[in-house]
Amino acid sequence: MKKGILTLLLALFLTTLALPLTALADDAPAPVSDPSGASIGTAADVIGVTAGAPTKEDMETLAAKEPLAAKLADVVGHNRIAINMVWTLICGFLVMFMQAGFALAETGFTRAKNAGHTMAMNMMVYGIGMLGYWICGFALQMGGVGGVATLGGAQALANEFTITIGGNDFGLFGTTGFFLSGVSYDAVIFSVFLFQMVFMDTTATIPTGTMAERWTFKSFVVYAFFISMFVYPLYANWVWGGGWLSSLGKLYALGHGAVDFAGSSVVHMTGGVAALAGGIVLGPRLGKYREDGTPNALPGHHIPMAIAGCFILAFGWFGFNAGSTLAGGDLRIGVIAVNTMLASAAGSFSAMLYMWLFYGKPDISMVANGLLAGLVAITAPCAFVNSVSAVAIGAIAGVLLCASVFFVERTLKIDDPVGAISVHGVNGAFGMLCVGLFSDGTYGDALNGVAGGVTGLFYGEGSQLMAQLIAIVTNFVFVFIVMYAFFKVLDLIIPLRVKPEHELEGLDQHEVAVSAYPEFVLQKTHR
Amino acid sequence: MKKGILTLLLALFLTTLALPLTALADDAPAPVSDPSGASIGTAADVIGVTAGAPTKEDMETLAAKEPLAAKLADVVGHNRIAINMVWTLICGFLVMFMQAGFALAETGFTRAKNAGHTMAMNMMVYGIGMLGYWICGFALQMGGVGGVATLGGAQALANEFTITIGGNDFGLFGTTGFFLSGVSYDAVIFSVFLFQMVFMDTTATIPTGTMAERWTFKSFVVYAFFISMFVYPLYANWVWGGGWLSSLGKLYALGHGAVDFAGSSVVHMTGGVAALAGGIVLGPRLGKYREDGTPNALPGHHIPMAIAGCFILAFGWFGFNAGSTLAGGDLRIGVIAVNTMLASAAGSFSAMLYMWLFYGKPDISMVANGLLAGLVAITAPCAFVNSVSAVAIGAIAGVLLCASVFFVERTLKIDDPVGAISVHGVNGAFGMLCVGLFSDGTYGDALNGVAGGVTGLFYGEGSQLMAQLIAIVTNFVFVFIVMYAFFKVLDLIIPLRVKPEHELEGLDQHEVAVSAYPEFVLQKTHR
Amino acid sequence: MKKGILTLLLALFLTTLALPLTALADDAPAPVSDPSGASIGTAADVIGVTAGAPTKEDMETLAAKEPLAAKLADVVGHNRIAINMVWTLICGFLVMFMQAGFALAETGFTRAKNAGHTMAMNMMVYGIGMLGYWICGFALQMGGVGGVATLGGAQALANEFTITIGGNDFGLFGTTGFFLSGVSYDAVIFSVFLFQMVFMDTTATIPTGTMAERWTFKSFVVYAFFISMFVYPLYANWVWGGGWLSSLGKLYALGHGAVDFAGSSVVHMTGGVAALAGGIVLGPRLGKYREDGTPNALPGHHIPMAIAGCFILAFGWFGFNAGSTLAGGDLRIGVIAVNTMLASAAGSFSAMLYMWLFYGKPDISMVANGLLAGLVAITAPCAFVNSVSAVAIGAIAGVLLCASVFFVERTLKIDDPVGAISVHGVNGAFGMLCVGLFSDGTYGDALNGVAGGVTGLFYGEGSQLMAQLIAIVTNFVFVFIVMYAFFKVLDLIIPLRVKPEHELEGLDQHEVAVSAYPEFVLQKTHR
Repeated sequence: MKKGILTLLLALFLTTLALPLTALADDAPAPVSDPSGASIGTAADVIGVTAGAPTKEDMETLAAKEPLAAKLADVVGHNRIAINMVWTLICGFLVMFMQAGFALAETGFTRAKNAGHTMAMNMMVYGIGMLGYWICGFALQMGGVGGVATLGGAQALANEFTITIGGNDFGLFGTTGFFLSGVSYDAVIFSVFLFQMVFMDTTATIPTGTMAERWTFKSFVVYAFFISMFVYPLYANWVWGGGWLSSLGKLYALGHGAVDFAGSSVVHMTGGVAALAGGIVLGPRLGKYREDGTPNALPGHHIPMAIAGCFILAFGWFGFNAGSTLAGGDLRIGVIAVNTMLASAAGSFSAMLYMWLFYGKPDISMVANGLLAGLVAITAPCAFVNSVSAVAIGAIAGVLLCASVFFVERTLKIDDPVGAISVHGVNGAFGMLCVGLFSDGTYGDALNGVAGGVTGLFYGEGSQLMAQLIAIVTNFVFVFIVMYAFFKVLDLIIPLRVKPEHELEGLDQHEVAVSAYPEFVLQKTHR
Repeated sequence: MKKGILTLLLALFLTTLALPLTALADDAPAPVSDPSGASIGTAADVIGVTAGAPTKEDMETLAAKEPLAAKLADVVGHNRIAINMVWTLICGFLVMFMQAGFALAETGFTRAKNAGHTMAMNMMVYGIGMLGYWICGFALQMGGVGGVATLGGAQALANEFTITIGGNDFGLFGTTGFFLSGVSYDAVIFSVFLFQMVFMDTTATIPTGTMAERWTFKSFVVYAFFISMFVYPLYANWVWGGGWLSSLGKLYALGHGAVDFAGSSVVHMTGGVAALAGGIVLGPRLGKYREDGTPNALPGHHIPMAIAGCFILAFGWFGFNAGSTLAGGDLRIGVIAVNTMLASAAGSFSAMLYMWLFYGKPDISMVANGLLAGLVAITAPCAFVNSVSAVAIGAIAGVLLCASVFFVERTLKIDDPVGAISVHGVNGAFGMLCVGLFSDGTYGDALNGVAGGVTGLFYGEGSQLMAQLIAIVTNFVFVFIVMYAFFKVLDLIIPLRVKPEHELEGLDQHEVAVSAYPEFVLQKTHR
Repeated sequence: MKKGILTLLLALFLTTLALPLTALADDAPAPVSDPSGASIGTAADVIGVTAGAPTKEDMETLAAKEPLAAKLADVVGHNRIAINMVWTLICGFLVMFMQAGFALAETGFTRAKNAGHTMAMNMMVYGIGMLGYWICGFALQMGGVGGVATLGGAQALANEFTITIGGNDFGLFGTTGFFLSGVSYDAVIFSVFLFQMVFMDTTATIPTGTMAERWTFKSFVVYAFFISMFVYPLYANWVWGGGWLSSLGKLYALGHGAVDFAGSSVVHMTGGVAALAGGIVLGPRLGKYREDGTPNALPGHHIPMAIAGCFILAFGWFGFNAGSTLAGGDLRIGVIAVNTMLASAAGSFSAMLYMWLFYGKPDISMVANGLLAGLVAITAPCAFVNSVSAVAIGAIAGVLLCASVFFVERTLKIDDPVGAISVHGVNGAFGMLCVGLFSDGTYGDALNGVAGGVTGLFYGEGSQLMAQLIAIVTNFVFVFIVMYAFFKVLDLIIPLRVKPEHELEGLDQHEVAVSAYPEFVLQKTHR
């Protein structure tokens, strides 16, 4: 079995090594792409970008009389695109750094005997997920998005596979951008790839928390390819890539269609629901539940590490949310960044109060998860709400987190060592709802082809909420069914669960050939 | 008592949850504010920004003849503001990340039995401080600053409460911007809020180092609200918000008035003096001093964690200092960033030599604090000095740090586990002095309404030094008295000090309901 | 001896403190420099920057008729330079943060008893290296580079010491920029200094990994000055500072001369070869090799710390590679950033497969080093290749890394605790080769004064590969001989190796006066 999967993987990978040869032929860039970026950002990119900016007619009629201004417009347009690309890339770097935050938070909140294994999953989900996304995930998600105006290009991403129902086209997935080759060898498309890849990576890493301390590394490897190549890209296409959920506004007047500014559902709910499916299939850790079904606490082994991880996540989240404008020139970024941090503050504060009131002490593990819950919940609405709403959203998220953690552990009896289902799944769904409730109409004009700002129920419009509900249901049904079936089938081929004796002993040496702490004397605090 | 404070906090917080309703009415943005940011950054923002840039007259007289250029100017102005906002926000993100640095440094330099508690204070000071600053701190500090030219706006922040003495107005605090609502729902004001909030957060977190390992969490919560809502904002208003210390130049020809480029006094000295007051009121940790008054060493439990925290601080400090231009278009940022890092290098190097010479070995804990001392000292003068002065300032700071640490511990007999009083308080004051000594006149024209570059004693002007001395004395007197009184009064209501048996056992389970390292076998190295 | 070196160091340092006085006279900036940056970025900086941009003639002939456009051009040029400087500085900050990554990775992969010492070397190599580079390293490297067009200036760096052979000038080192004083007190030059300094720092810190756990701190201090002041700057001058290796294309038609986009050789190979020399001179750790010459495993003491360090390195590497454009306006940055991360993914993945196939398990330590190997290898070619090549380069690097680690340990019998020789030395050389193999000709026009894109053997040109081979040989010969001789001579003056009893006990208290983990109970896992 083991030889089989390894051979499969190696074959897959060696194929990619053979590709440079074909790439010699393929990468003669089509006219529509510009790998050097030298011709991206031109006079066309100044048209209409501010209230006083030249119009298309201005450029045509006035340019002859003002040749210097016309030439200057070319540099101005280039500068504008450069500002947007610098912003997008740096924000993307920050999001990539969140992988370190996940690694530390998950490892700190689990047990010492599996620390190497938990770190290893976090490291390889980055590497494997990126390769999978490069092979086909990006193409499926963004291959039909049809251009990224703030970055002055990406016109080659123009092929969406659609089905037509009742005269309307529903986008299902894109078909350009495989291996970032051919027409997608383009400076803008690469930048978009970077930003989208690190978002996918966040989704892919979430289940490693829920499924920690008992998951076989080899089945994890298959999972990482699967979610990055197929599952994440499909739902992401429907919301962000020009797919059907984004067209509900245009076609059926449901607000602006499904709106998820930075990924409460696309990234977090997808990850949380996949974690739920995985947690159910995998079952609880040995010793988590007593004979009578009541849970044992299996406390995390390194709280400072976990908290440091949460700080890194909060740091990277600025890139996650504010970067999702793909434009430093969109000055709403200031509002987005502030809403993001206020929601995190309110989430940690309300979780603290909740635990203090109902359990007698401000449990700092829960406080840290409350901070993350606030961040997850604000991720979809961050661009559309005011600061008071951001605080309210965060505060509710913190309470929701606490309630959900106990519900999952005690009622559903699903073992989720780091609370990922509650943090990302429940609050991801809640964040999507908030777009339909709290959006105040000051932002989002022309989003998904619908005029006017995004407006929620509290500001007088109910149709946006409908679109959000449809997206939430779609995400849950699609992701849960696909991932549950995937884990069930995979388990038949490559068992998901490590041997009980390895689980008791700790996975590190058995699965990833290290001991996390070979020199520290450890004690068993539980079986 | 506990129920009382919790109810108080909850009531306070629930009030904020009720605010979205009122916000419905409030957030009809006044003409002066622009929540979407779409109309910020216009042709007006190109006027006079470089030597060759159009003047106001140019724009008026030439625009008719060159309509395309005039329209283009709108995009050029927008680009300029976008560059500045991107810079300001990213630098603000870096400063926020310093909170992780403080958390790791403070926790690493204290003992294992309190590691969860120390991390918890660092996490919640971020959340609570942010909420307090959002409620009223920002309004008191910046509500009367009267516009931020580099960001093209924030005109709504126009209400400073002043008193008139001898015909001169002295600004005391601002009165616009509460809850970031009403006219302050504006993309620029939100950006300014973000940048200022993370600075306040640095101040608020400094005393958690000095008061670590014995402070009750509930009194800490009240402290975090108090310093973020009132103490930090007032002094910050006087120096940065248009308050009286900044007008000493204009009114009394004392240089440019009090000048503190990035916060040696506003941020660090305020934090250090508050830490001093707190450390005195709280008293030393059990076992810190022997019967005869000589100190015991209580070494930090995790040096790699502490050093990693110091690296994060040095990383974030680039944002702290260079970001304080609020302008990526102010190319002095290159000089500021280099001065910042050179001072840190010199601080660590001189502390290393000092310890090697006088104590026989290059004590790496002191070296790390020397690095921070150099950073604190260069923070006020970073924009006004050359690189040789930056090295000199850092080198002196490193020596000052070592001397001060021993003075505080052995002579004053104040127990400061992480050396925060010396790092931030002493070197914060020293940094303010350095502005009056080392400033070379190449930068700062028109700062605080005074023409010409900021110039110190070594370059021929003594009046700037006077303004700096006044600021230092003001900071010490104001912050020390207010914080000392606050801690004394608070102690009567909510005891600051944990029970001795909890202190001996470790605060983690008692105060924040976790064990930092439940699986690692620990030994007692001291009582 | 000890007194001697300390006195020497102190004298050296006090000299710098005396310099502010002389600086009073020196820092009257020459006309060519602009410390405030206020006059940097003008209408001249719009000329020819895009295909449609004004030409020099346009500016001269049209400006009279379009005065507003001409004035506007000044702001447009300033904006362009500001974008580039913001990009360069933020990327530089990210590279500086890599020092934290090195500290954590090296410490995590070595033993607990030396953790304070390993952290201490990483902290002080930053401080000492920076001072050495400020004193003369920067001047030797960049003092003759002759201007940095993307940043609109640095014209003062115009003095390269050259020798003439056969009528051709060969640059050896620069002679402007000592102490960043005089004409080099300039906003652009400071920015360039920052970016170059953090690269040098990476080189300087690499040998601390190979030489960890047995190196005396005092000899390390001398080393840090030596490499930052002389060794790194010389080779860096030859490739990046206008020196002779960069002119091989212009003079002898060897492609574009030696091309190393972001430092596979300048930074990584230099560090790796210096580590090789140091490792040979210092000898293996006690207990590393058995009597029969077979190696013992001395596993790292803290795997999560090491992995976290690797994540920080991967995060900072975005700044390392994409920042090396020194231009946010060069939109190729998108391609560079994506190539960088793809190579890291492929490196970790191929190392995982290699270990799984040949050693039965996906050793996560090797996987982490595979990630770094991919990053090192892509560093030189990152700007010149497509994504398929980036994956191929990374995949080969991962395999090369594993093979090299075993070769160094088992065949060469050099003890390299963290694998730095293989990661940085071997893969640095490999990365240089890749420029000559995989470059696809889409980028690099006019680089080193040669027209056309950089093109490698697989795309039909072999001459570039020749230049790369010459650079690789030059680097190895120069760095190895100089560093080997340096370590041998230094060892006579200040012994490199700690006393055996200190090595057995651990270096922390003996060398840097701390215990890394005073409260954790540790066990000996090996002698």
